[in-house]
Amino acid sequence: MSTQATNNLVVVGSVAVDWIITPQAERQDSVGGAAVFFAMAAAPFARVQLVGVIGHDFPKSALGDLEAAGVDLEGLERSDGLTFRWKGRYHENMNSRDTLATHLNVFEDFSPKLPQRYRESDFLFLANIQPSLQLEVLEQMDRRPRVVGLDTMNLWIDIAHDKLLEVLARVDILAINQEEALQLTSETNLVRAATKIRALGPKIVVIKRGEYGALCFGPDDSLFAAPALPLEDVIDPTGAGDSFAGGFMGHLARTGEITGDNVRQAVIWGSTMASYCVQGFSYDQLRGLSRDEIGRRYQGFADLTRF
Amino acid sequence: MSTQATNNLVVVGSVAVDWIITPQAERQDSVGGAAVFFAMAAAPFARVQLVGVIGHDFPKSALGDLEAAGVDLEGLERSDGLTFRWKGRYHENMNSRDTLATHLNVFEDFSPKLPQRYRESDFLFLANIQPSLQLEVLEQMDRRPRVVGLDTMNLWIDIAHDKLLEVLARVDILAINQEEALQLTSETNLVRAATKIRALGPKIVVIKRGEYGALCFGPDDSLFAAPALPLEDVIDPTGAGDSFAGGFMGHLARTGEITGDNVRQAVIWGSTMASYCVQGFSYDQLRGLSRDEIGRRYQGFADLTRF
Repeated sequence: MSTQATNNLVVVGSVAVDWIITPQAERQDSVGGAAVFFAMAAAPFARVQLVGVIGHDFPKSALGDLEAAGVDLEGLERSDGLTFRWKGRYHENMNSRDTLATHLNVFEDFSPKLPQRYRESDFLFLANIQPSLQLEVLEQMDRRPRVVGLDTMNLWIDIAHDKLLEVLARVDILAINQEEALQLTSETNLVRAATKIRALGPKIVVIKRGEYGALCFGPDDSLFAAPALPLEDVIDPTGAGDSFAGGFMGHLARTGEITGDNVRQAVIWGSTMASYCVQGFSYDQLRGLSRDEIGRRYQGFADLTRF
Repeated sequence: MSTQATNNLVVVGSVAVDWIITPQAERQDSVGGAAVFFAMAAAPFARVQLVGVIGHDFPKSALGDLEAAGVDLEGLERSDGLTFRWKGRYHENMNSRDTLATHLNVFEDFSPKLPQRYRESDFLFLANIQPSLQLEVLEQMDRRPRVVGLDTMNLWIDIAHDKLLEVLARVDILAINQEEALQLTSETNLVRAATKIRALGPKIVVIKRGEYGALCFGPDDSLFAAPALPLEDVIDPTGAGDSFAGGFMGHLARTGEITGDNVRQAVIWGSTMASYCVQGFSYDQLRGLSRDEIGRRYQGFADLTRF
């Protein structure tokens, strides 16, 4: 964490206002969405350029928080109507949840338009949106970015499989939930699933396993297992995977290297940011972190795993 | 793995003949039971002294395998009637299973009797049996062993809770499944569960998480996270937790040290032996391993986790 954040990192994805219910607490109007969590987690590492859409109800204070973190909001479209809203309830163990309501609102007709400045960026993360929109974003870039990362979800695996394969062939990194990796490949074994996915395009596949951490297959024949930080108080898991992706891509953008060792460190930076995310609602615990503070928690992973 | 196995390690637990059905294959008369898996996994590390009971139907070849591995069978009672039999079917993901049949047979009236030689041993593992029998074994030892390890299951947490607390107060190490650790403490969070368990007696709590590896709380304030080895072909997960305990306790018995660093290494030896276990039915893949072979797989964990 010694150098200043310099490289630009574009993220395209959802910006949301969530209603979160956990066994212990509840928060209405909890600002979320993949692009927001990603941006807040990546901001300490790189200059994040956010592409998304909000409605008139999106809290002004959240725009202020993103700007204070150094996130470039020129690509954040402001639309009439309401922001994308999601309501969910977590089960007792915090590992599973039920969706109680989803209102796409202004996100329904979202068509990403990248400001000219963004199109020159070297690092791009396509958070979970329709594969056809992910392709449109790739097309808008002036040239193929140095590193493109991707996330997706079960819905697109089901209803937009071919388009998703088209995107996959054009990205370097897939960061995906364990269940979705298995679904995408019709596999029951993660090692075989990762091998199949790498044959589809991405040379690096990061399998996100929630409280169990992450597995990173590649580059080359590297296989890396990272735990999640065991935490006594998990307040709200929403956005953990997006925060992971933010720390991960942020580190790659900051250092510019996609070597084996650097990718492993990126996984730990991702795990570090995910651990902050779950310790509060929304991005509460991702806000205002000093680099020293983040660095100390990163070092804690060394002690957690050494033998 | 440079010194010869010298220390004695008593294990008390089930000896079984299982009928295993997985999505890919099936094996009737698959020799199993916690004490068998533990013994086969610990045998490369220490002189295992097995206490259990078998019926007339127990395969002679399995007795030969245990003896060939160096396991002391003086404490293995041979009874009329049938061996404990369990039949189970694994689900598609191999992480969960249904019990189709359980016949305790000669195990129903099992009352462990330790041969005199066993009573002087310094290392003892009480695999999953009734807590009252675990207490009886402790009473039969000439003196409190240097290290006592324990496993248990949901059944005893439910129906023999007080007796289980009595045993817990007298052991050094609890090696337990994640779900059972939560159940035992009425917790939903593992860190809080481990803290509660350590207050009940054991200064080291190892939480077994199946394909996700293990967490080890203690000694002192050490917290260690170990992955499971990602494997392309999992044939039969039966006995993985017992094999883990065997490698773990075997390493402690071989080295004699219960320091923080040594306990971490014990967790990795346990994970190493568990990885062999799941690659075949019964103890097929635990049999005939050379120390060099085991050592190479152990080193693989270093590459899997370094960053």
